[in-house]
Order: sequence, then C-alpha cells, then structure tokens
Amino acid sequence: MIRLNCDYLEGCHPAILRKLTETNMEQTVGYGMDPYCAKAAEMIKETFSCPEASVHFLVGGTQANATVISAALRPYEGVICADTGHINVHETGAIEASGHKCLALPNTDGKITARQVADAVAAQDNDEHIVKPGMVYISLSTELGTLYTKAELEALHATCQQLGLLLYIDGARLGYALSAPACDLTPADIAQYSDAFTVGGTKVGALFGEAVVIRNAALNRDFRYMIKQHGGMLAKGRLLGLQFVALMEDDLYFTIARKAVEQALRIREALMNKGIPLFIDSPTNQQYPIFTKGQLATLSQQFDIALWEPIDADHDATRVCTSWATPDAYVDAFIAAVEKL
Amino acid sequence: MIRLNCDYLEGCHPAILRKLTETNMEQTVGYGMDPYCAKAAEMIKETFSCPEASVHFLVGGTQANATVISAALRPYEGVICADTGHINVHETGAIEASGHKCLALPNTDGKITARQVADAVAAQDNDEHIVKPGMVYISLSTELGTLYTKAELEALHATCQQLGLLLYIDGARLGYALSAPACDLTPADIAQYSDAFTVGGTKVGALFGEAVVIRNAALNRDFRYMIKQHGGMLAKGRLLGLQFVALMEDDLYFTIARKAVEQALRIREALMNKGIPLFIDSPTNQQYPIFTKGQLATLSQQFDIALWEPIDADHDATRVCTSWATPDAYVDAFIAAVEKL
Amino acid sequence: MIRLNCDYLEGCHPAILRKLTETNMEQTVGYGMDPYCAKAAEMIKETFSCPEASVHFLVGGTQANATVISAALRPYEGVICADTGHINVHETGAIEASGHKCLALPNTDGKITARQVADAVAAQDNDEHIVKPGMVYISLSTELGTLYTKAELEALHATCQQLGLLLYIDGARLGYALSAPACDLTPADIAQYSDAFTVGGTKVGALFGEAVVIRNAALNRDFRYMIKQHGGMLAKGRLLGLQFVALMEDDLYFTIARKAVEQALRIREALMNKGIPLFIDSPTNQQYPIFTKGQLATLSQQFDIALWEPIDADHDATRVCTSWATPDAYVDAFIAAVEKL
Amino acid sequence: MIRLNCDYLEGCHPAILRKLTETNMEQTVGYGMDPYCAKAAEMIKETFSCPEASVHFLVGGTQANATVISAALRPYEGVICADTGHINVHETGAIEASGHKCLALPNTDGKITARQVADAVAAQDNDEHIVKPGMVYISLSTELGTLYTKAELEALHATCQQLGLLLYIDGARLGYALSAPACDLTPADIAQYSDAFTVGGTKVGALFGEAVVIRNAALNRDFRYMIKQHGGMLAKGRLLGLQFVALMEDDLYFTIARKAVEQALRIREALMNKGIPLFIDSPTNQQYPIFTKGQLATLSQQFDIALWEPIDADHDATRVCTSWATPDAYVDAFIAAVEKL
Repeated sequence: MIRLNCDYLEGCHPAILRKLTETNMEQTVGYGMDPYCAKAAEMIKETFSCPEASVHFLVGGTQANATVISAALRPYEGVICADTGHINVHETGAIEASGHKCLALPNTDGKITARQVADAVAAQDNDEHIVKPGMVYISLSTELGTLYTKAELEALHATCQQLGLLLYIDGARLGYALSAPACDLTPADIAQYSDAFTVGGTKVGALFGEAVVIRNAALNRDFRYMIKQHGGMLAKGRLLGLQFVALMEDDLYFTIARKAVEQALRIREALMNKGIPLFIDSPTNQQYPIFTKGQLATLSQQFDIALWEPIDADHDATRVCTSWATPDAYVDAFIAAVEKL
Repeated sequence: MIRLNCDYLEGCHPAILRKLTETNMEQTVGYGMDPYCAKAAEMIKETFSCPEASVHFLVGGTQANATVISAALRPYEGVICADTGHINVHETGAIEASGHKCLALPNTDGKITARQVADAVAAQDNDEHIVKPGMVYISLSTELGTLYTKAELEALHATCQQLGLLLYIDGARLGYALSAPACDLTPADIAQYSDAFTVGGTKVGALFGEAVVIRNAALNRDFRYMIKQHGGMLAKGRLLGLQFVALMEDDLYFTIARKAVEQALRIREALMNKGIPLFIDSPTNQQYPIFTKGQLATLSQQFDIALWEPIDADHDATRVCTSWATPDAYVDAFIAAVEKL
Repeated sequence: MIRLNCDYLEGCHPAILRKLTETNMEQTVGYGMDPYCAKAAEMIKETFSCPEASVHFLVGGTQANATVISAALRPYEGVICADTGHINVHETGAIEASGHKCLALPNTDGKITARQVADAVAAQDNDEHIVKPGMVYISLSTELGTLYTKAELEALHATCQQLGLLLYIDGARLGYALSAPACDLTPADIAQYSDAFTVGGTKVGALFGEAVVIRNAALNRDFRYMIKQHGGMLAKGRLLGLQFVALMEDDLYFTIARKAVEQALRIREALMNKGIPLFIDSPTNQQYPIFTKGQLATLSQQFDIALWEPIDADHDATRVCTSWATPDAYVDAFIAAVEKL
Repeated sequence: MIRLNCDYLEGCHPAILRKLTETNMEQTVGYGMDPYCAKAAEMIKETFSCPEASVHFLVGGTQANATVISAALRPYEGVICADTGHINVHETGAIEASGHKCLALPNTDGKITARQVADAVAAQDNDEHIVKPGMVYISLSTELGTLYTKAELEALHATCQQLGLLLYIDGARLGYALSAPACDLTPADIAQYSDAFTVGGTKVGALFGEAVVIRNAALNRDFRYMIKQHGGMLAKGRLLGLQFVALMEDDLYFTIARKAVEQALRIREALMNKGIPLFIDSPTNQQYPIFTKGQLATLSQQFDIALWEPIDADHDATRVCTSWATPDAYVDAFIAAVEKL
C-alpha cells in the first residue's frame, strides 16, 4: 500500500538523522538554551530577514498555536480565523481551553480577507458584551492547500496594524507554500507582514518541531513561561535546534518542499488531463480530486488517500499529499493509476 | 423619553419589594440555605411538575449559563447552540473562558432543529481532533422572541437522549414564552423535555435572579461548588429565594408576563396595520420592526427603542420590548406614534 | 436564637431600602451605565481621595476578586497572598479556575509582610519553570479581623512598586477596618497605597455589592469586558449604584461600621474580663474567643456563633461577629451570658 | 567540563537511535495509532502486569501531568501533592492553567502520607466554599530522589480508595526508583496501587517521551481528546512507540537505570566517607551533598553540578545526578575530586 493521505508519514530527512546521530552523546544544557537552538534561531532569522525577531522551538503545531494565541490575547479577546482554520476545527478546542473564542469567518478557498476582518471589528463595535477581536490567524498554505497573495497578505497586515490586531501566520506547511511556483511571497515578506509566524518542521522534513518566530516585542515578553506552562518546553531542547539547523543549511527546507510541490503539480496535471474535477484548485503539495466512489474503490486497492468530504451520493472529495519523503515512483504509480481510471 | 428598548429597565414588581421590606431585618443563614430559598424551590418544582429536580438560585443569566454548561461538560466537550444564541454572541466569551467551545449552528428564526443536532454529531464522528458535542443549548423564548413548538422540543430532547447529549434551556424570558398565546408548551413540558433549564427573574419582575432547575442527577452533583467557583453564590441568598417566592405565588410570574405579551402583540398588530415590515415575526414580548431611518428619527424623539441590525442604507431593524412593568399608556403612545408615521 | 456567627445575616440598612423603593419604577439604562452608578462612583472617589480612579460595581466578593486578579495577570503569573487569604481558602478555587496560582505565604495574624513578598520574588528568580508573582493580594480587615498598620501597608506598596507587582486590597470588611479605633489608616491611604481595592457593601449595610476601585490605568483597560465575562455585570446595575449612594451619603458606611466595631470591642472586653483566651486579638468586628466545649454548649442554647477551628480535645476557637445590623440588646445578652459562664 | 547537574543532558540510548534509523522511511499512520505504539503499549502492560490498562504516549512530563490531572478532576476539584511536588513548583502553573488548585501538603523527605491525605479531606469537610480534593499526586522517585515504601504506597492507595480519590504516580524517574537496591516496590505494585502512572522516558534513555498508563477506566474515557487538546498528540506518534519498544526490550529500561543508581551510590559513599553532609539521604540517581562554598568553587572548575538550595552563608546544598548515559570515568573523576577536597 502506497500512502499519499498526508504529509507526515515517514520519519525525517537523512540530514537530520545524521545530525542527531553525530551529536547523540554530547552533553548540553536543556530547555532550548543550548548552542544548537541558538544557531538555528540565527539561521531562521537570516532566512526570513528578521534579525530583530525572537525564535522559539516547540514540538507540535497545536501546542504552538495555543501558546502564541494565549500569549497574545487578554482574557476577553478572541482570535479571528477562517471557519476552516486548523485552530477552529482540528485542535479539539485547544484555543477555547485556554479561554479564548475562535471568531470564525466564512472562508473563500480557505482564506479570509482584510475586508472581512475590518467588518468583524466594526460589528463588535467596542461592545463589552461581545468578545473583542485581538488577533488574526491565517494558515499558509491553508488547510485547503491554497496561498495568500502578497497583495492579500499586505492588506491583512495593514488592516491589523490599523485596528490594533496582531497577525499570526500558522506556517505548518510554510515550506510548501513559499516554494510553490504560484507563490509571490518571499520568506522576508512572511516576517515583514506578520507579528508572529511558525516555520513548520513536522510536515517538511523534521521528526517534529515548529519554530515560532516573533517579531512583536510585546508578544515575546516572558514567552518562555508561556511555552513551559503549555507543556511545550522540551527538556532536550537541542533536538529541535539540531533539526532546524539541518533544515536551514543549504536551503534544505525549501529544496525538499519544492520537490514535493512539483510532484503534486504533476499529479494535478494528470487529474486535469483525465477530467477529474478538483474540490479546490491547490497550487501546493495537497491536491483535492473529486472521485466517483467507483474510482476511489479502484485507487484504494493500491493507494491510501484521504477522504476529505462527501460531495454527493456518488462522489467524494479526497486529499492526495506529497511530501519531502515521497519517492517519484509513488507519484508515477499514482499518475498511471489515474490515467487508467 | 419613554424607554421600550429592553425588558430590564425598572426595579421589581411591588410584591417583591414588599417581601424584601417585610423580612429585611430577619436573620437567616446565608448562601441559599435559608427557608425562603427552600420554599421557592418547592414552589418552582410544583409549578414545573418536577418534584425530583434540584433548584439553585443565581444572580444573573451569563453566570447561570456558564455555571450549568461548565458543570455539564468534560474539558474537550462543546455546547451546540444557534449562532444567534446568547452564549455565542452576548456573553463576552464566558463559555470559552471556562474552556468550552460554542458549536454554533445556523439558526432559523433564532432556532435550531433536532436534525441539525444529529448532523453535527455525525460530522464530528468521534474524531478526537474535533471538539465533541456534549450539550445542546436553546433559549426560550429565543433571542429573536420566537418559540420552539412542543413537537420541536420533543424532537430535540429525543435526539439528545439518543446521542448522549444534555439539553439545556435558557429561560431568561421563559415567562414571556410560556404565557404567549402562540405557545403550545406547558411548564411541565419544559421540565420533561430538558435536563436543566432556567426560570428567568431579571426580565420578568425580579430585581435580579435566575432559578436553575436541574432534573439530571449527574449534572446536579456538587453543583453548589460550581456556583461558588463561578462567583454566583450570593451571601444573602435569601434575597433570591424571597423574590422567587413572590413570583411563584398566585401565578404572578405568568400573569405579569402574559400582560406584557399582550401589549407586545397590540404593538405588532399596529405595525402590521401600518405596513411596517417585521425583521422576524415574534409571538412574544420582543418585536422587531424595520423602520426607515426617517421613521426611526421621528420615533426617537419620544421613544428609546433598540437598534437591532442595519438592513440597508435606508432601513434598520429595531427591537421594541414590553415587560411586566410597561404601563398601558406607553403602549398606547407608541401605537399612536406608529399610526402617525 | 440570636445569631452572631457572621456579618451578613440581615437584609440592608433602611436607607438603602428606602432608596430602592423610591426609585423602583424609574426606567434607567442597564449594566452600570446609569446615573446612580455614576453618582456612587463620584462619591467613592471623593471619600477615598482618588479622583483619577475608575469605579465598577460587582455583586459579590469572590466575583470581584476573580475579576480583578484575572484582569491583572498574564497567564503564567500568580497572586501572592496569605495562606489564610480568602482567595486561597474560601473561594472554591475561583482564582485557579481563571488559570492563576495563589502563591500562599505563611501568615502572621492573617497578614503578610513586604519582606515576605520580596523574598518570594527573589526565590522565583525569573525562572520560567516557576509561576511568576504578578500581584499581591491582602485583605483589610483580614480574615482574622486584624489590621495592617499604615507603615506595613506603605512598605508593601513600596516593595510592590519596586518589584513591578500590583497591590490589591480586598475590602470586603473595609468599613469595619477603617472605622476601628486601632486603625491608623485613612480612606485616602487605601487608595494611595494600592493599585486597586474593593469597598465591601455586602457585610456593611448593603443587600449585596462590592465597589471595585482601580487606580492603575493599565489594570482598568477594558475592565468592563472582564466583568461581563465573569458573569458580574448586573443587568439592573443601578441597584448597585443606588446602594452605594446611600452608603456614601453622610458617611453612613463608616458610621454603621464604627458602631459594630464598638459593639465587638465591648464583647472583647467582657471576654478578657472573664479570662476567656482569644485565638487572635482582633481590633475589629470579628472576635475569636476560645471556649471550652462546656462553655460553647451553654452559649449555643441561646446564640449561634461560628466554630472557627478546634484547639484541643476540650477547646474550640470560635468567631463572634457584630455588624451594622446588630442590636445593642444582642450584644448585652451575649456579654451577660459570658459573664455567667 | 563534565556535567552531572541533571539526567537529561545527552540524546538517547543507542538502541533507540538504531530503531529510529532502521524505520526512518517507513510509512505509518499518525497520532499514536501505529503498530509500534501498539507494541510498546503491550510491552509496558506486560512489564507492569496490568493487562487491562490503557497506555498513551506523550512527549513531556508537564504535558502528561496536566493532561492526566485535568482529565481526572471536575472543575472545582484540586489535586493533593507534596509542597515539593513537581506540579506544585516547577511546571509554571500548568495545573492551575487548566483550572485546578494544587493542594500542597508539607513534605517529609519529598513525600506525603496517607494520614495527611485523610486529614486534608477531613478538613475540607464537604464545604462547597473550599476546593474539593479529587486526586493525589506523588512522584516516584520524588523530586528529592527518595522512595515510597510498599507499605506507604499501599496505605496511600487504600486511603484514596476509601475516600474516593484517584491516585496518580508521576514516574518521570520511575526507572531509577524501581531499580534502586533500597526499593521494595515492583513494577506490578506500581500498577496495582495506583489509578494511573507514567513511565518516564526522557530521563531514562529516550530522546523524549512519557508513557501514561491508566488502569481506571473512567479516567481513560475519551483520554485521546484530552491529549490532543493539551497539544500532546505527536503527529508522528510512532517515534514514541519506537522508543518505548526499545526501552522495554530485554529489560533495557531497568538495566540502564540500575547502572546509574549504582554510580550514584558510589558517589554517595565517597561523600559520606569524606564527611560531606547530605541535604537528603537519597537512595537513587540524584544525590544532594552540602558543600562549602570553597568546595563548590573547586569542584566547579571541573564539574557542572546543580545548585539546589542555599543552606547558610558558607554552605549550599547541591544536586549531583547520574543517568543512563553517565560514563564510569565521569563518576570516577568526581569521586577523585571529592576525595581531594
């Protein structure tokens, strides 16, 4: 069985495993105060052109989101997000568990607009009976594989600045976003047009790990207390530092992501050639073909792909993912199977 | 200026003030363990035909909702409600502050259906990445003045029973609901088709106070701890007991509510006669006429009515309320003004 | 049975009842935005010589404490208090329920010192694995009826200022404290040497109600959202305003408190004359005699006094309270009974 | 510089690294549903003789503690622990952040007794103004390296059973505890005398990871939701399973722990021979010598040991740790240095 159902099926890129092995018996201080975390932080700040930022390393995405958001908000504030946002649907209420409401707005292709944000703030109207928006959360790429354009991100950022909201980008799949041919955003743009963002490792070559990059000094105050309280401070923190050092070296992070996106775009082309409709037209490593139940049954003999959403009695939207680890042979096999449908 | 903007503008019904005055210098034990609370509880259980229930008295509605809901749910559970539900929009995230997500469903006339509840549970599909529905919250009358029919409530209750959900009725305006001519529910139905409900005092004759009636024994376990932790345990708890004794005596609660509904229905008739459109067709004490901005300006010289929601550049939906305290003269004056528009 | 077990046994001072009665059918806006709340706020600011402060009215003490403390602290911060502090022992974990640790220090006569606070901050040592002190909570009078001296309060305030901590005074019994002959603090001192304090109504003549006075502007930001979220925003907020107007008129608050303290000191004198040991030597309205079980049995035939803490097999510490409502006849009767023991 | 300051300085045991390397490019399902987690769970249940238990794998100890404790308690319940307990002092209030009070009791050598627990429950006395004890938390070995005897654990368990409390053992250092010569507890005892316990990996050979073993079915209900909400559900969950498979194979977990304890006992003997006083007499891998400042300065030229607590102007208590990774040469060098003091 070939699994293409998600992008966290394998372990880690060999370069990471090598680094872990080489340093295994070194003694370092714990909790992220080691030289590898320091070096990884420097490399990330250089990659994203934000020398003044602070970088913290957490194990997982839900943890990173909950920690950043609860550090940012006062108790009565909420976080604006798309109704499809990961924090709104797939984190078992971790944001609410830290006391904050997800102020979900209707998405378009997984995205929300500056205008929607401005309207939501206007509707709240400083009424103390209503949760006050304090932050905007977006994902890049989104949960539907789509991308904000530079113009869209600039507009969101400008609106947030004007309305006193923080802007936070969940970059669990940031590598796949920035390395997509269709993306007009640079790493520097990500830093420039946000108050905080994550650089996702789990889905882009690491065993685990999300780097939280904070440009807003107020948000960064005592952030390590927040990490510890949320259970996100890894004792052997260097494991995170080492992984991000490996990913940032020689642009590995973007190199492996680009290859995955190219594979996904080959799959997309094959689907379109075959006339398979797409649930959403994604330019990144996640593709969302709508198959008939018959087609799905056929494919499922050889491939594990994810059921995304039922469309009608005869059709299901599915998700097909590539990743840094996907062999070309798997992609070739899937394309061949599609062509045969 | 005549205020018709809400139903909590005045103090309390004279019968309550009398009772408070008569008992003022009595010494009683505190925290709701006094004889007046005990008597009020008995009267409520009799009125609602639920001798086995437990009754607690809290000061306000947000407090009551947050206390009941957080007593009912485990940390990862959420509460299904209409997107217009009070807990979802007008309690400053009090439910989320106690750790729980409001699982808001699209309302129809302020209501949700058994089918919607069943679909929401099915969609969650026991997936541990998604908040699990644990309770259904409805308001009666709703935030739009509307009523669930007996058939609708029965269906909701049956669905909840079948799916292992608790059903909670926010009765902040229960008096206005049950005394409306259009209502086919009895007090006994309210108790029979819910696990817990409130009998709202604040808007129906009391200075303040909501009686929380709990039929589900598991939900009632240690409930007084929950009240205390939520800051809802009034030191001089008898003040709540006394008020509900007064309201339950000689059916006062429903008598004063019925009069208010009749006044509101007179206003509704006048609006319809005049051809004023209604934002929603409410059978209770809240009416929602859509006025032109010109009409509103005229009325606002004499009346304070609530702006509900802008409709278009020239029209606003408004809310006009009657209450136990509204003099007929105010109603007559408003009707006369409407006729003159 | 004469009850002397606590200071919230009766309703309210007649002046308050009069005001409630006179204004009962007035229409006012809700949620504390009415003219009576505005007037009461002005009177309190004048009484406490803090014209720049903000004043909010909440129903109860646990609610007021939880609201102030959670408004003050970031998520990883805790509140320093005496181990006997009300928030630490008698609020069912309401502070923890809002996410914050009570950092309890050993009390001396119900009090903590500036030195203890400084030591606690030094011990935490900016270690992100340990809750960071963010506020100091003291009660005045304390849960044991004792008083901070002006020098002690000045020292606490200076230490807090120096260490970046907020200082909050729980004044549930502030009237009994400031009107005690032994007290060297003025109302102006209370405001000057704190960031926030409450003026307790429930135990000093009101039906209910605590005024929260905030001198620290940062703490006051969006405070009304905090009140609403904590379920503390009374719909008919004027009920709170009216009560505090009555209490502040002609110094009523302190006049009725002073009388109660004088009564308590008469009881104290009788106890000492009789050779009854005191669990703590309190200069305010709460007295803590240690009775033999035999003496207690005798007294309990006529009086309800509170069991405070067992001392040994034969002795119990008790609490005897006077209040604004205690008739002199009750005090005389109790003294006579003590003399007869 | 030789580091002996803690037991999480290195990476992982080579057997683990080997397993991670061998399986690196395998595709498995995520979130702990993979065959390696299943196998590790089986091995742990066998090792601890609790075939009916459920086993979950979390990344870190603070996360594991907060997840177990908040799954166990209703909102108004607290967790009894020693005042030295990790949850009470070194988790930045993670327990309080999930809404629960740590009910800290005075420790004796890092431990609490069944009698203390019974007294604490008696003192709370079902008073709804006071946090209700719902669980007892102990650490094994404790934060001071000490051990509960079988008799002590049996007594705690019997008391908990009788009083309706859950008993939870934080086994961050369970390997070092159970492999200590002085320990009279078996792995089976740990399971038998608790409702839940953790098997700590981070400090005993793993890169990271704590196995949570739950024998109480009610506590286990929906536990995976709790893990996810607390940010503890590792996407590539097999990394945890693989590590515990390696640790449980051929008794590796206890073998490597035993060696570390033997090293620590050699250090202890050298300290005693030299007449160095011990802050606490620990039978496990953590030793707590009290050095003069002069001695400490000398040792610190060659060794990094942890400052534990100042004793007086001239003496400091310190912590010296061995671990699964400590070379004998380090131990020899430290002993030689002690002998030369």
